[in-house]
Amino acid sequence: MCLKDPYYRNEDFLAPFFEERGVGFWTFEKPHERIPVGPGSGEEDVRMLDAYYTKLDRSGTGGEGEPSMRDVARVLEEQHYARIEELESMPRRTMDSVWWPFTQHGIVNKEENVMVVDSAKGDYFDAFYKKPATSATTLGTPSEEKGSPSESLLNPLFDGSASWFTQAHTHGNPELTLAAASAAGRYGHVLFPSGTHLPALQLAERLLDSIGRGWASRVFFSDNGSTGMEVALKMALRAAGQRYGWQGVNGHEVGVLGLKGGYHGDTIGSMDAADQGIFNTAVDWYRGRGHWFSPPAVTVQNGEILVSSIETDNWPAHPMEDGLTATDDSSASSKDHWEVKFGSLSEVYDVESRLDSDLAQYYTRHIRTTLEKITAQTDPVTGGKRKFGALVLEPICLGAGGMVFVDPLFQRCLMDVVRASGDLFGDEQGAEQAGGDGWQGLPVVFDEVFSGIHRLSYLTASTILGSTPDIATYAKILTGGLLPLSVTLASNSIFEAFLHPERKVDALLHGHSYTANPIGCNVALKALQLIDKKEKETDGNWVEAKQDWGVEAVGTLEEPSKQLWSMWSKQFIEDASRSPRVKSTMAMGTVLAIELQEPENAQFSGYASSLAQDLLNVLRTDSSTLITPDATSLAATDSKPPFEAFHIHSRPLGNVLYMMTSLYTDTSVVRSIEYTLRKKLASGW
Amino acid sequence: MCLKDPYYRNEDFLAPFFEERGVGFWTFEKPHERIPVGPGSGEEDVRMLDAYYTKLDRSGTGGEGEPSMRDVARVLEEQHYARIEELESMPRRTMDSVWWPFTQHGIVNKEENVMVVDSAKGDYFDAFYKKPATSATTLGTPSEEKGSPSESLLNPLFDGSASWFTQAHTHGNPELTLAAASAAGRYGHVLFPSGTHLPALQLAERLLDSIGRGWASRVFFSDNGSTGMEVALKMALRAAGQRYGWQGVNGHEVGVLGLKGGYHGDTIGSMDAADQGIFNTAVDWYRGRGHWFSPPAVTVQNGEILVSSIETDNWPAHPMEDGLTATDDSSASSKDHWEVKFGSLSEVYDVESRLDSDLAQYYTRHIRTTLEKITAQTDPVTGGKRKFGALVLEPICLGAGGMVFVDPLFQRCLMDVVRASGDLFGDEQGAEQAGGDGWQGLPVVFDEVFSGIHRLSYLTASTILGSTPDIATYAKILTGGLLPLSVTLASNSIFEAFLHPERKVDALLHGHSYTANPIGCNVALKALQLIDKKEKETDGNWVEAKQDWGVEAVGTLEEPSKQLWSMWSKQFIEDASRSPRVKSTMAMGTVLAIELQEPENAQFSGYASSLAQDLLNVLRTDSSTLITPDATSLAATDSKPPFEAFHIHSRPLGNVLYMMTSLYTDTSVVRSIEYTLRKKLASGW
Repeated sequence: MCLKDPYYRNEDFLAPFFEERGVGFWTFEKPHERIPVGPGSGEEDVRMLDAYYTKLDRSGTGGEGEPSMRDVARVLEEQHYARIEELESMPRRTMDSVWWPFTQHGIVNKEENVMVVDSAKGDYFDAFYKKPATSATTLGTPSEEKGSPSESLLNPLFDGSASWFTQAHTHGNPELTLAAASAAGRYGHVLFPSGTHLPALQLAERLLDSIGRGWASRVFFSDNGSTGMEVALKMALRAAGQRYGWQGVNGHEVGVLGLKGGYHGDTIGSMDAADQGIFNTAVDWYRGRGHWFSPPAVTVQNGEILVSSIETDNWPAHPMEDGLTATDDSSASSKDHWEVKFGSLSEVYDVESRLDSDLAQYYTRHIRTTLEKITAQTDPVTGGKRKFGALVLEPICLGAGGMVFVDPLFQRCLMDVVRASGDLFGDEQGAEQAGGDGWQGLPVVFDEVFSGIHRLSYLTASTILGSTPDIATYAKILTGGLLPLSVTLASNSIFEAFLHPERKVDALLHGHSYTANPIGCNVALKALQLIDKKEKETDGNWVEAKQDWGVEAVGTLEEPSKQLWSMWSKQFIEDASRSPRVKSTMAMGTVLAIELQEPENAQFSGYASSLAQDLLNVLRTDSSTLITPDATSLAATDSKPPFEAFHIHSRPLGNVLYMMTSLYTDTSVVRSIEYTLRKKLASGW
Repeated sequence: MCLKDPYYRNEDFLAPFFEERGVGFWTFEKPHERIPVGPGSGEEDVRMLDAYYTKLDRSGTGGEGEPSMRDVARVLEEQHYARIEELESMPRRTMDSVWWPFTQHGIVNKEENVMVVDSAKGDYFDAFYKKPATSATTLGTPSEEKGSPSESLLNPLFDGSASWFTQAHTHGNPELTLAAASAAGRYGHVLFPSGTHLPALQLAERLLDSIGRGWASRVFFSDNGSTGMEVALKMALRAAGQRYGWQGVNGHEVGVLGLKGGYHGDTIGSMDAADQGIFNTAVDWYRGRGHWFSPPAVTVQNGEILVSSIETDNWPAHPMEDGLTATDDSSASSKDHWEVKFGSLSEVYDVESRLDSDLAQYYTRHIRTTLEKITAQTDPVTGGKRKFGALVLEPICLGAGGMVFVDPLFQRCLMDVVRASGDLFGDEQGAEQAGGDGWQGLPVVFDEVFSGIHRLSYLTASTILGSTPDIATYAKILTGGLLPLSVTLASNSIFEAFLHPERKVDALLHGHSYTANPIGCNVALKALQLIDKKEKETDGNWVEAKQDWGVEAVGTLEEPSKQLWSMWSKQFIEDASRSPRVKSTMAMGTVLAIELQEPENAQFSGYASSLAQDLLNVLRTDSSTLITPDATSLAATDSKPPFEAFHIHSRPLGNVLYMMTSLYTDTSVVRSIEYTLRKKLASGW
């Protein structure tokens, strides 16, 4: 609304401006000038204003047929109800028009299954829930007893899966928003082959000088983790094929080495780099190409820190010290299950000091023996020996595969043995060549799409593993959780496999239209700057978390701390692992993983299980799980300002409940979530 | 710079604000208050101002140690030179840190090969070129004779490949920028499975009601054309496998039917849906799965409109009317080459009226015979009969495959014959089933990633072909050329192949982190709104282009014109095709394609050829190809305001020179480009 002014005539500009944008705009005559103070002037003012307001109310002041204030109020009210009506209609309309990713529409088919996000801010969605007439304690309408006066239709939901592992810098972050707007206005999109612009160049340089320092010389841009991994695979396979004498379409039966339960994305190439499992069995063109080792996992079970086998995987039955125990007869040729206890998680993640352990020797022997076996096998399609072209790893944690924290020593041994086994992959010079420049044995690919850039506290797993890859892919947090972008870093020896002074078709013929999109690059640059700032903080949630885990080092983007810490409290991880409903727990950085105890007669298990979903449903909707600041004090954190009561939304991974914070989540919020989880784990849900 | 004001104290707020953003900020004392008019007041004012400026210049007014105006000028100058230095350093730094897509770094390795984009606006990059000391007529520094006074280091380059076919709404479009900023601030990213938000929902509904009207019921979101096609393939193969009795990993040898020279993206699944060619031969995991028909092409050759065969493809030698001529002996069992002349391009694209032609019968026979042959072949891997799961088409034009305009009648016949051939693909009910609900024969997939949404004038090729697909993918223009987003539309019968009341692993287990990213969706919505507005215009470039092609219909997003038109003039296409340096020409919508005549002894041909690159180099850098408004009048268009002189940047496709406008390019600009191309084609380059 605007008062008419014959001199400035703002309305002449504003009326068409708002009309074009679909925003209501109304003008009214100004009230009379104030009557100069004098006898009776007060009463006259009152009388005239009264007449003015009466006119506004009844017939408006804009002239015949123009809306009165009452008309405006009606329009605003209509718009308000139209908005609510739209919110109410969204679940049905979405189920009628959209095909969701990773969602069985035959199960998720009720309106209440649909999360309607009206906006998002900080760690929370502002989500729409109707208050049922029969209950005062449903989600979004906290009961009176809880002390919350909110009757709003829009209520906060904690984004517990960090919007599919992307969210890091909080929703609607104003600095990232400005970075996006600035690049959109300055460039739009600019095609990248043989071109350059500052956001892409500066991002590339910054990545090479931090994540890639000491090994990477090139940054290749693409759109998401899956395309970034397709690029990584093309790079690795070309380099290996060139050295070992197969190349191009002749290499279509070449496999990768990897870890069972790994996940690298949903395009066919990335799928083929993972072993057959729940995600790919129903995909017609999927055909796993490679060999995958069953990795030992790090877990907390009944308060104890364990490194233990997941599957048999023909572990050799060689006797070990290091406190290893095994469930089978140690005279047998392979072990069904073995485990090693550790005093602390920090010990497990101090890879360098474990390199001389018996366990390291055990791993090394097992890996080398396996490689000797599989490289001697015959490929059923080619009739020749099986060939391998890359070692592909999700370092530290298999994300989509169930938040499995792999023993980092095993991954390090895998890298070391593969790099020393050029003789098995076709290297005629054997160990000599392996000692030369460039990659050795096979190119090692890190898939840090999920885990990198501080999701698990560290910038890159290289610092934990004490060894760098030849190729590595990043996405998700790269843009602070704002929009799609991926980078694949590569060493110079990989890059050189594609160089030719004349043959342009030898180049890496891979590209997507929006490769190195200026908006994505500019937002990523800003996101990394913000992390830089965060790492230098001397108080706040990171410092509090590090204190809880006994970590002193501040660390920077360039020189990150190698010590283990998490936003989730050390004590909580241990306590929760003692619940009879819990099989194991683990946490690192922003990630909490709780493997729930499956009932023995479960119809669907693993990813197909609905165990975590059941608990998440309770966390999302049950009044008993409304997270309130009151819980904070009970969780022994009281230095933080209160927050608005909230429920939690997260995505399950079968029988694994995981939860993720952003990089900015308040300690009090995390403690309060832990408090509620403790209650639920103790009492059932 | 800011004058100190003790009352408002703007500087107290602005100084830290700008410091945080790295912007220089300086404050100075205000000059004295103006001396009231009186005897000698003028001189006194002058004296005091003089003293003020002197103080500013020498020592500043901010007090001891604060910068003088001279210091500020020095800082600004330093920043200016630092900026130029940065621009100068960008080619080298980019070549040292970036791995470009589709680029042979062994060839593109000189600083002058790198296009430095400082910003982009409208149809132009604002690109950096150093003016060589030896020449006054190099790119960006138009010679005096050209009448341009520009000595700027930044000069316009026409974005002739529309930034890899994405650019449509002009660079830095303010409305798209606002849409991006608004969604970034309101949502950030929001995970999509079982969730909803207005930008995604409204975009889905709008697409179903326009592109998908009459056939599509679902929209699946992903990040780019390649992932969108991976999704399309998973959809089609599942649906077909379910009907024909193979499913999941058992279907890994099932093939697609498609067109030779097609391109569907660079991830392995999308690659496997294309026949072996220049883009995939060097890719180790590529293995074409399917059969690809060599399509007849529409070209203008020597001013004549031709539909002719590209490769033999075992075309049957059955005699035809329709004016067909063939180069071989018509008694042979197959034809090496055949061609049919048409009176106009409009005739060629009037598919409905050609359905009864001899050529249609010829196509139908050839396709059915081929299908009978290939479905009877033995699959070397499975040992069973070859199986097929989808018909995958780039309708109307094979983009990356060399801008080949396929005879639309052939594509229509292919759809019709495949849909009527369920008996060959394993349909036991044969024709009966084919007549039922849902998809028939094989699911038909349209890859309209490049061509759809008005790149080729029409919204979707369905209107030209007179037949709708079962699945279709869009990207590129979808977001108006701002950032990555893709949608795959599907019919209900396809959707139902993934439904199960309990088994969640039957769902389409495909998703990328940023699926249905609110920024992409909001920008796409705005981009479609802008097109809507454009279609309703009664004057401007579209109306002028339609007039040139004799098309009256205005058309809307929902009811698009079916008539052929292009931003490139009809006369130019015909004239250019007569050049001895040109083999053929064609244009539709924003796209111009000129197939250059390859020398007989060319070392590299097709995509590997550098023929178009040579011409493009001239267009990008040679003073003779500076496009000036003067040329406009020569090209017989004079109703437009002049534009700043520019050079052209485009990407070659081997021996094919293509050029693309945005949806907003002025007719005068297009005519001026044509004028220069005419000159170059006449005189050589």
